[in-house]
Amino acid sequence: MSKISFKNDYTEGAHPDILHALADTNFVPQEGYGYDSYCEEARAMIRRECNKPDAEVYFVSGGTQTNLLVISHLLRPHEAVIAAQSGHINVHETGAIESTGHKVCTVPTPLGKLSVEHIREVLAFHTDEHMVKSSMVYISQSTELGTLYSRHELSDLSAFCRANGLLLYLDGARIGSAVMAETEDNPTLTDIATLTDAFYIGGTKNGALLGEAIVFPRPRPDDAFLYQIKQRGAMLAKGRVLGIQFTTLFRDGLYYRLAAHANKMATDLATAISSCGYSFLYPPQTNQIFPILPNDLIERLKATFDFYVWQAVSPDSSAIRLVTSWATPPENVAAFAEYLSR
Amino acid sequence: MSKISFKNDYTEGAHPDILHALADTNFVPQEGYGYDSYCEEARAMIRRECNKPDAEVYFVSGGTQTNLLVISHLLRPHEAVIAAQSGHINVHETGAIESTGHKVCTVPTPLGKLSVEHIREVLAFHTDEHMVKSSMVYISQSTELGTLYSRHELSDLSAFCRANGLLLYLDGARIGSAVMAETEDNPTLTDIATLTDAFYIGGTKNGALLGEAIVFPRPRPDDAFLYQIKQRGAMLAKGRVLGIQFTTLFRDGLYYRLAAHANKMATDLATAISSCGYSFLYPPQTNQIFPILPNDLIERLKATFDFYVWQAVSPDSSAIRLVTSWATPPENVAAFAEYLSR
Amino acid sequence: MSKISFKNDYTEGAHPDILHALADTNFVPQEGYGYDSYCEEARAMIRRECNKPDAEVYFVSGGTQTNLLVISHLLRPHEAVIAAQSGHINVHETGAIESTGHKVCTVPTPLGKLSVEHIREVLAFHTDEHMVKSSMVYISQSTELGTLYSRHELSDLSAFCRANGLLLYLDGARIGSAVMAETEDNPTLTDIATLTDAFYIGGTKNGALLGEAIVFPRPRPDDAFLYQIKQRGAMLAKGRVLGIQFTTLFRDGLYYRLAAHANKMATDLATAISSCGYSFLYPPQTNQIFPILPNDLIERLKATFDFYVWQAVSPDSSAIRLVTSWATPPENVAAFAEYLSR
Amino acid sequence: MSKISFKNDYTEGAHPDILHALADTNFVPQEGYGYDSYCEEARAMIRRECNKPDAEVYFVSGGTQTNLLVISHLLRPHEAVIAAQSGHINVHETGAIESTGHKVCTVPTPLGKLSVEHIREVLAFHTDEHMVKSSMVYISQSTELGTLYSRHELSDLSAFCRANGLLLYLDGARIGSAVMAETEDNPTLTDIATLTDAFYIGGTKNGALLGEAIVFPRPRPDDAFLYQIKQRGAMLAKGRVLGIQFTTLFRDGLYYRLAAHANKMATDLATAISSCGYSFLYPPQTNQIFPILPNDLIERLKATFDFYVWQAVSPDSSAIRLVTSWATPPENVAAFAEYLSR
Repeated sequence: MSKISFKNDYTEGAHPDILHALADTNFVPQEGYGYDSYCEEARAMIRRECNKPDAEVYFVSGGTQTNLLVISHLLRPHEAVIAAQSGHINVHETGAIESTGHKVCTVPTPLGKLSVEHIREVLAFHTDEHMVKSSMVYISQSTELGTLYSRHELSDLSAFCRANGLLLYLDGARIGSAVMAETEDNPTLTDIATLTDAFYIGGTKNGALLGEAIVFPRPRPDDAFLYQIKQRGAMLAKGRVLGIQFTTLFRDGLYYRLAAHANKMATDLATAISSCGYSFLYPPQTNQIFPILPNDLIERLKATFDFYVWQAVSPDSSAIRLVTSWATPPENVAAFAEYLSR
Repeated sequence: MSKISFKNDYTEGAHPDILHALADTNFVPQEGYGYDSYCEEARAMIRRECNKPDAEVYFVSGGTQTNLLVISHLLRPHEAVIAAQSGHINVHETGAIESTGHKVCTVPTPLGKLSVEHIREVLAFHTDEHMVKSSMVYISQSTELGTLYSRHELSDLSAFCRANGLLLYLDGARIGSAVMAETEDNPTLTDIATLTDAFYIGGTKNGALLGEAIVFPRPRPDDAFLYQIKQRGAMLAKGRVLGIQFTTLFRDGLYYRLAAHANKMATDLATAISSCGYSFLYPPQTNQIFPILPNDLIERLKATFDFYVWQAVSPDSSAIRLVTSWATPPENVAAFAEYLSR
Repeated sequence: MSKISFKNDYTEGAHPDILHALADTNFVPQEGYGYDSYCEEARAMIRRECNKPDAEVYFVSGGTQTNLLVISHLLRPHEAVIAAQSGHINVHETGAIESTGHKVCTVPTPLGKLSVEHIREVLAFHTDEHMVKSSMVYISQSTELGTLYSRHELSDLSAFCRANGLLLYLDGARIGSAVMAETEDNPTLTDIATLTDAFYIGGTKNGALLGEAIVFPRPRPDDAFLYQIKQRGAMLAKGRVLGIQFTTLFRDGLYYRLAAHANKMATDLATAISSCGYSFLYPPQTNQIFPILPNDLIERLKATFDFYVWQAVSPDSSAIRLVTSWATPPENVAAFAEYLSR
Repeated sequence: MSKISFKNDYTEGAHPDILHALADTNFVPQEGYGYDSYCEEARAMIRRECNKPDAEVYFVSGGTQTNLLVISHLLRPHEAVIAAQSGHINVHETGAIESTGHKVCTVPTPLGKLSVEHIREVLAFHTDEHMVKSSMVYISQSTELGTLYSRHELSDLSAFCRANGLLLYLDGARIGSAVMAETEDNPTLTDIATLTDAFYIGGTKNGALLGEAIVFPRPRPDDAFLYQIKQRGAMLAKGRVLGIQFTTLFRDGLYYRLAAHANKMATDLATAISSCGYSFLYPPQTNQIFPILPNDLIERLKATFDFYVWQAVSPDSSAIRLVTSWATPPENVAAFAEYLSR
């Protein structure tokens, strides 16, 4: 991998503070399975960040794992989850949700975002016991296309879901980049915790070695989620590994600083691309951007940079995906900008 | 946790060499999902350790996860796995195997070890399509009771399984302690790889932060296991975390040294206990020992030491479980020995 | 099949009244999927028989289907069902319950009957999230061994279950024979409906072509069971086939008369066997009896009669299973009695 | 239901010959679970009809049950099935396929028919282990829209599937109406058996009380399907009920005559509708037709006839679905024609 990579946000290890914290605590004996003092502290910190003192918080390893745990825990066997056709659970999880027995009902959406109208459409189609019952809405913030729900859009979804007995679950693999975006009317962690029934705070794509924090913002009359975590093979014996990372990320706002850096790098990239006269497949809002470039330029870029070609846009041009992260050095962005401007 | 702990072998973090390796490689960019160079190297090392150059090797996070991945991958829907009643998959995995749709057929066994006779008994009971079809045998080495299959016993099981169309799968959560035991006729990693159809090399309980290496020792006409890992939420984006740990563990025999230390500590404990005149519920062979002590002594021990009370043996005495690890300091063993001798 | 069969209670077709009813109603057009007027009427009749005017009643094809529908509908993913080791769901359903994701926790019981003590034992063993959570108790009436729970025993189980948050589910494949047994303190359909959370009234083994009536005796805040029936492939397009059979069975007490006949035939058999000096493996109470006979006699009986050899009792003797049904002619019983007495 | 019904093809009971056959055989004792002589005979007849002497044939109760049995038996956990968006498994089975763990990958198709191009599109999208692996193609003949695959189209699909390692499975809920259609190049039962890997011959919608015959046309190195049938609760104790029906249907070509009658009634309806100047949403080919009528006419028709309104076509007109069956009397068709012509 000697090329400059804009391929994803998990190319490096962890932020050094996390490695230091692991080393510093290494020989402190702790209970296993998430009962260690670091997990306890991390849960308290996350409750504070979300302004939800009664929230349930659990730590697991990755995003697909989180999605299958939460969705299969909250749905009954005949129930389904509604998602954008581009949603991660529909495209890139090898049928993990179906593997737990549940249908994913999808709707094509232009920007990877579900609207109330999309949900209504699915509900109208599902009329009786010969069809699944849609009982949950899955959204991602930021979406798989780098776009964002505004606070207004999220409030609309939330109000509709509550009025119609649907759970609202938000995939926060890139929630850091989302909450630090400088778009207007951008929902905060507290907004998200207030408006959803479950969500997760992604660690893997924002500086952790691994780890996602699942949040059920309001107390539920049920203590079964630990059973679910264990049954699906998601409980780490050394749960401390996850607790230590999240305490580090949330102790002095490191989590936000890392996400802001990723966004800054993406904004700088987007500015450079725009200034060369190129446009974007989706509006650049977070750390994933999708510029449309001539195919011959794309071919030449490949010699120096690593990225995904996303889709053909015209016979002569395609959109590519560029991803920045907490670890992207400004030099990499500068190199790309310079290459384009030549 | 200010007491001296003999509660389990995952009370501390990782061996310091692992933390150093994580730090040293931290900013080397790598492919995700197990395609990094560390995983590649670790796979090669494990193939060498097992003397199986064509083995398939995969890295995942934990033991329950490994068991459900392997078992549900190798069985067809109507097939079942045979296990000792004390087997981890039957007792301590919250029905993870059943959750993937498969019955666990159990047999009571005195020392946590299955014999050919036990398996025959299950097969004889399962006669037609009104019953599950037993197609796999699950064993643990060392067992949940700290005991070991000898090479001879393992060969018998293997020969019987092959003659009867059964797969033999070995849970190696504590395979390090097993292969380093000083019992007679003790199977090596190569023996295990030769005699089984699948097994795993446990990292979590032998010095890793997390991580188990799944080994299919012989080439199979099937490349689907990566799909299985992804679908069950077991694929880490930063697969490097697992690769780096296993290269460290197997570079200079660290894995074996750590296990040998754990065994030594257990042997020293057992010697001290024996010399005070106490006996054991199961023969002490690895890093888990089960001394039988008077109940009043157990109560007093609890003030200083942390351990599980395993089961009542008489009205006045019980077996306790003492576990040692790579991180157990000799002082802890000495403290226990001294306490007993007083 | 030219031998006289005591092999099971589903050797013939249906009681002729059922065939007549099917013919009489054949061209009356009806809604599909259980919304026909016959199902409606049958549901009302069953509510009356059980003295539970608010009961939910559903009709499906067979017993294994019923068990998997009810158990997987009422349990959450991490929950398990407790059963006697001889329970049908544990032995003769090809892992149907596990196939829906749930563990069956079994206890050896001498007469195929669970007691409060057995259940306590399972609950005491299941302590935390590393083990399944037992949330339901499965019993059969009559049991797979032909034995019966008395009203007193059933009340004890029911009270214990309610006090401990366990659902009590009764497999009534042979509930007809059970309620018509002439044992003391024998629970009625109303008793069963009062004391359990769900049960079924078996049609297949008491004169129907096929069909079981699932009863949830008390109203539940949930209308999802139809989804469950459809999703598992258990909803018949021509639901009328089931409704017509159950209206016929319950119109003039035919169901009870058929069961009483089966019991009478079994009692006559048992009397004949006893009078020849033979004893029984389990007390003969319903339409399945298990006499212990010399092995050489068993071999000779096989030439004329069809039955299962159940288990060896001594080197020279075994228990066999004899089953009678609504269709057993008294001549068959007489032939067996005569054969024995020779 | 005093209206004239064109709502579906399962409004009546069974063809009288079937009821007679059930009565005639009622007291002949038989083995249970499909080992009776009627099932044996029916299997032989179906092998002859398909011209596949080595075919495996199984009888079960209904179409959704059949689909989930076959698909979950033939796929491995990570594998998915490709279907038209309008396919029964995607729309009207309450997520039955997903309930067994498998994703249904759908493509919008104008006439409910998949082409090689549609399948290619799905395969091209599924590239690696982060996505499901599509391993089976599901089609219906006739389709849910009453349309048909020609022999040529079916051959193309079959050749493509075989070249690409995909199984081809055909849902034959209405295969009778399909094979009796008078379209050009219409595949026969033998064609279907030759070109697919599995299919079923629907009984429920062509004169049976219940019952579908699953056919695996070529011998497979595997005898596990009976386990699958039992495990999913699909095995009838009185399997004779299914065997007797299929022997009756195939003894003297009754199956074909019933389907031809249903088609004739549909053709007559379609002719009458066309002659009044109305067109169709899909070409009328089998026993389901979809005329486009003015909304006010539809409203008036509802007073006398029972049918589904399928979808709006313009602000003033909609398509309705009219279904005929083996039991549709010509008078019903005449009444509809007369009504329209007024």
